[in-house]
Amino acid sequence: MSKFHHLGVSLFNCNKFCLFPSNNFCSSFTIAKPPIKNHRFQMGFHTTPSHASKYLFRQLFEKDSSTYTYLLADVSHPQKPALLIDPVDKTVDRDVSLIHELGLKLVYAMNTHVHADHVTGTGLLKSKVPGVKSVISKASSAKADFLVDSGDKIFVGDLFLEVRPTPGHTAGCVTYVTGDDPNQLEPRMAFTGDALLIRGCGRTDFQGGSSAELYKSVHSQIFTLPEQTLVYPAHDYKGFVVSTVGEEKQYNPRLTKDEETFKGIMENLKLAYPKMIDVAVPANMVCGLQDPVPTTV
Amino acid sequence: MSKFHHLGVSLFNCNKFCLFPSNNFCSSFTIAKPPIKNHRFQMGFHTTPSHASKYLFRQLFEKDSSTYTYLLADVSHPQKPALLIDPVDKTVDRDVSLIHELGLKLVYAMNTHVHADHVTGTGLLKSKVPGVKSVISKASSAKADFLVDSGDKIFVGDLFLEVRPTPGHTAGCVTYVTGDDPNQLEPRMAFTGDALLIRGCGRTDFQGGSSAELYKSVHSQIFTLPEQTLVYPAHDYKGFVVSTVGEEKQYNPRLTKDEETFKGIMENLKLAYPKMIDVAVPANMVCGLQDPVPTTV
Repeated sequence: MSKFHHLGVSLFNCNKFCLFPSNNFCSSFTIAKPPIKNHRFQMGFHTTPSHASKYLFRQLFEKDSSTYTYLLADVSHPQKPALLIDPVDKTVDRDVSLIHELGLKLVYAMNTHVHADHVTGTGLLKSKVPGVKSVISKASSAKADFLVDSGDKIFVGDLFLEVRPTPGHTAGCVTYVTGDDPNQLEPRMAFTGDALLIRGCGRTDFQGGSSAELYKSVHSQIFTLPEQTLVYPAHDYKGFVVSTVGEEKQYNPRLTKDEETFKGIMENLKLAYPKMIDVAVPANMVCGLQDPVPTTV
Repeated sequence: MSKFHHLGVSLFNCNKFCLFPSNNFCSSFTIAKPPIKNHRFQMGFHTTPSHASKYLFRQLFEKDSSTYTYLLADVSHPQKPALLIDPVDKTVDRDVSLIHELGLKLVYAMNTHVHADHVTGTGLLKSKVPGVKSVISKASSAKADFLVDSGDKIFVGDLFLEVRPTPGHTAGCVTYVTGDDPNQLEPRMAFTGDALLIRGCGRTDFQGGSSAELYKSVHSQIFTLPEQTLVYPAHDYKGFVVSTVGEEKQYNPRLTKDEETFKGIMENLKLAYPKMIDVAVPANMVCGLQDPVPTTV
């Protein structure tokens, strides 16, 4: 059995072993009252979740690789625990500064997958912010403090993300989805990495990629979410900031096609070899940097 | 007296003449029930407004000039009327496509000021989407269908923006702020143009700019808004997407200083002459393009 506790925050593998009853996994946490739900958005139109006052969300952008980094925190918790999804090495100082200004305690630096186009900020964050733990999927075969699997839940305070395996861009891609629970965000938010982009998807021609797998992943793990679920990808190249599951089901030019047509599209993209892949992948397999070497005073 | 009605949408100059009682300016509009306000964010932490289901908000990005364009709509109105703030010529096709997919009717293409770093998309939008009206401040001396002034309200359906003059970057800069009313967005949203950027501000060394004016504008027109008000600027160069009035009052490295220090900072920026200014300003003085020439069939 395995359970992780540090800094008042838990990550536990719910599919495999669940030590705490739902909503009561750590007695020191404040349990939120269920939010009143008359603020729900109309399907397909809304863009931003109706937050309870207890949670914080920030989207951040790294221009060279067009990467989005996401900051989530439970600001009602005394420690204001926070996590970052897909941080980039170049923007770590910006992210650390923002986290400091907002009075948050960064607990997890997570990746949706082993990126090929930039070096993750995880390693630098671990060296700059004591106690930060790196998170990536077990299926990625990468090194990290916590290796997550299908159905795992990652908590910061009361806020949690569920792990959904969405291989196809790489063999180890996952989508992190905010919980389906009265004290979670409404609508839910899906951090889809490169599996599903806004009106697009990640390439499938390297790193264990498979167009058949990607098609199955998106249709079974993302398109089955409620249509108002907000889609926050790892990248956008056209200046979109957010989409919804409903919109992508209706307008994604690749994933609205049948599987054979999709595979044909993906096999004929004729994309250039990624510029950063030979630097980024080896670095990202160890979450950006090896653990910092302890110094002796 | 002046009043603008087209496509079921009103723009009226409230400070000067107000034909309609508040909340009942057009009998064909659905009046929203006041949203329940227990979803308010904690000051300084929140990032996204708690929308009623009736409104839509989308942020869009143009990478070359690092410009944010904002789409707002009342999707509960039968026509789903929408407005764009600070559209860019290069991304007009993207914006028109999104508006079409979301089933919106674009009514206003608005600018916060005469931009010097990109050509506004207003003119192209007018040529591509029949009936769109351009909006800019009267103080800008630019040409547009509607010239707005301090205190004016711009409506799409029930949603409205108030005009606050915030000169200093240019003489005609305005900030558009969502209304302070039970059926408006909570927290409010301030579209600050180049007056207030996230942890920064626009330059003050051309186009009638004045550091003294800008200091006064931000402190009197933006920093007086509730601290949870969301700050959405016309640009960001560091990958920030949103801030709050509370955060900028606490952490803006220029505008937290006293006025003399601020003026000293602005006078010593030693910025290069803007690359696009000689193309952009003349074009933007006529809202991107002259009105399209009517064609005869």
